[in-house]
Amino acid sequence: MNYILQDENALYFECGFSCDHAVFLKLGSEAFFITDARYTTEASEIIYTATVLEGDRRDLLKTARLLIRKSGIKTLCYNPAEWNVEVFARLNEKLNITFQKKPNFSQQKRIIKSERELDILKSAARFGQEAFTRFGEFLNHHGEGMDEKRAFFEAEAILKRHGELGLSFEPIIALGANAAKPHALPTCKTLQRGELVLLDAGVKYQRYCSDRTRTSFFDEGFNFEKEQHFNETLKQKVYDTVLCAQEAALKAVKIGVKAKEIDKAARDVIDKAGFGAYFIHSTGHGVGLDIHELPVISARSETIIEENMVFTIEPGIYLPEQFGVRIEDTIIARDNGAEVMG
Amino acid sequence: MNYILQDENALYFECGFSCDHAVFLKLGSEAFFITDARYTTEASEIIYTATVLEGDRRDLLKTARLLIRKSGIKTLCYNPAEWNVEVFARLNEKLNITFQKKPNFSQQKRIIKSERELDILKSAARFGQEAFTRFGEFLNHHGEGMDEKRAFFEAEAILKRHGELGLSFEPIIALGANAAKPHALPTCKTLQRGELVLLDAGVKYQRYCSDRTRTSFFDEGFNFEKEQHFNETLKQKVYDTVLCAQEAALKAVKIGVKAKEIDKAARDVIDKAGFGAYFIHSTGHGVGLDIHELPVISARSETIIEENMVFTIEPGIYLPEQFGVRIEDTIIARDNGAEVMG
Repeated sequence: MNYILQDENALYFECGFSCDHAVFLKLGSEAFFITDARYTTEASEIIYTATVLEGDRRDLLKTARLLIRKSGIKTLCYNPAEWNVEVFARLNEKLNITFQKKPNFSQQKRIIKSERELDILKSAARFGQEAFTRFGEFLNHHGEGMDEKRAFFEAEAILKRHGELGLSFEPIIALGANAAKPHALPTCKTLQRGELVLLDAGVKYQRYCSDRTRTSFFDEGFNFEKEQHFNETLKQKVYDTVLCAQEAALKAVKIGVKAKEIDKAARDVIDKAGFGAYFIHSTGHGVGLDIHELPVISARSETIIEENMVFTIEPGIYLPEQFGVRIEDTIIARDNGAEVMG
Repeated sequence: MNYILQDENALYFECGFSCDHAVFLKLGSEAFFITDARYTTEASEIIYTATVLEGDRRDLLKTARLLIRKSGIKTLCYNPAEWNVEVFARLNEKLNITFQKKPNFSQQKRIIKSERELDILKSAARFGQEAFTRFGEFLNHHGEGMDEKRAFFEAEAILKRHGELGLSFEPIIALGANAAKPHALPTCKTLQRGELVLLDAGVKYQRYCSDRTRTSFFDEGFNFEKEQHFNETLKQKVYDTVLCAQEAALKAVKIGVKAKEIDKAARDVIDKAGFGAYFIHSTGHGVGLDIHELPVISARSETIIEENMVFTIEPGIYLPEQFGVRIEDTIIARDNGAEVMG
């Protein structure tokens, strides 16, 4: 398959190197990494799976078009989500070949993780888990009266370990009713005893992501463990239902099942408890170089689970204007079931 | 002009509100803001310049296509850089109209700032300037032996003011030879007396950006002021040349001149000093809701400078493997010349 890529994580997967201005071309048995003068030295030192070429800083695609023309290929695959209309038109300029749309083909190649990747992902998960513990202790001692924006800032600082690690995504920290929005933005609302705290966060370690969510009750001895006791029957019921749904989905992870069966295991528990209308997203998503990659764990996903796929299990219930609960772990699909990381 | 937008800053400019999943449609005299159920309540409360419509969360474009068809319009303008090939194909589905490419038309509309926007930009610049002062004091007291990653982390923390402000972009903090790369990434290199420190950073205040760069000499009494004394003749010469180039460009800012004349003023100074080959980028760029917007201040830019345009003046000289110097301010083009902000 001949293909072209420009996404940084896709490039890193192909070459073990990437930068913010590069194109990767696979033409028959040959591979090319085209970048500008700022990056060629470093690229040449690291990349051995492709020929590094220096292109014009203003138009790397000129070099790509030249190579494509010279190769005599007839078809070139690309991911239509990776190219904007303007840049794609420039790529296509005067090339007499067929561009074949292959949505997410790089993520498809990356869907089963190598042992090396799994080691890195496990380290990332461990760092992520430690940050939850430390941030839990921080909130327990200093959280009362703190607003979401400040808590967000402190969560980021703890996750980053003073700059040693990157973030998989901007953490979500939501208090009380704000947790009813699956992608809440931090507000000026302050944390009070007797409230829910939802934290969804992950770090990047050696470019691989971690992802985890906990929902906890803010009172003395606050922490982000899974065992939580709430002061209201409804909150406890919703929490227990989500925890139960997560356990059911984790148990449903088996080599050879369809992803939608895992989603169904979680959804059935929530449906039976009467909260089906409030579980408004999929059960999970793949995690790797990208924070969201394949497989999709949704009600429609026909993907067959294979060994060493890595994905989240994260059911949730969101009662508008009241509160929301989500519990998320990232797991490896193993021969004997789900291995929870972190 | 009929047009469609999905960029968050473009939407904010049209409506005073935006979110991460919305489409704006201008069809004749009517305007529509289409978003999903998560955001319709808030959008309806804030937006009065467009009709807020709730679309299908999985496909907002369905609603857009319906409105387009109903309106009977023949031509719709769009920014080809704003749409990826996949999404654009979905937008286009079975619509019998002409899509007209208008690169950056939203930025073009925003090129001259209103008094309200200028007030916000000035506040942003002030917050940015204060962060430079505070981070300078921090480095003066704690910088020796600190590595770039840690310094980066601390710079971010100071810029954000404990979460009160966002960042315009990830700050660039580069020590010594790393400053020779215009877009250096933080490394493990540690700060030693007698070295250069380059800081390029900005904050976001009420969604508007600040942008500033200083290059300083790390020694006792370190600060990010423009007056700097270096321990080597070459460094001092390069620094003085860049400062001189910046002053020349600032003086060249006049209503009615072409942007390329401002670029030339800076470039001439650097050329004459013999460093022309090492000034490898444009002299400046517009600043507003986006950190990079119009006008472009480059050797080719024919844009006529008008009152209340806001842009950076940031010449630089980069000696590979040795060091780099850049000095940047963001200014307002005024009747009587450049008004430096911050």
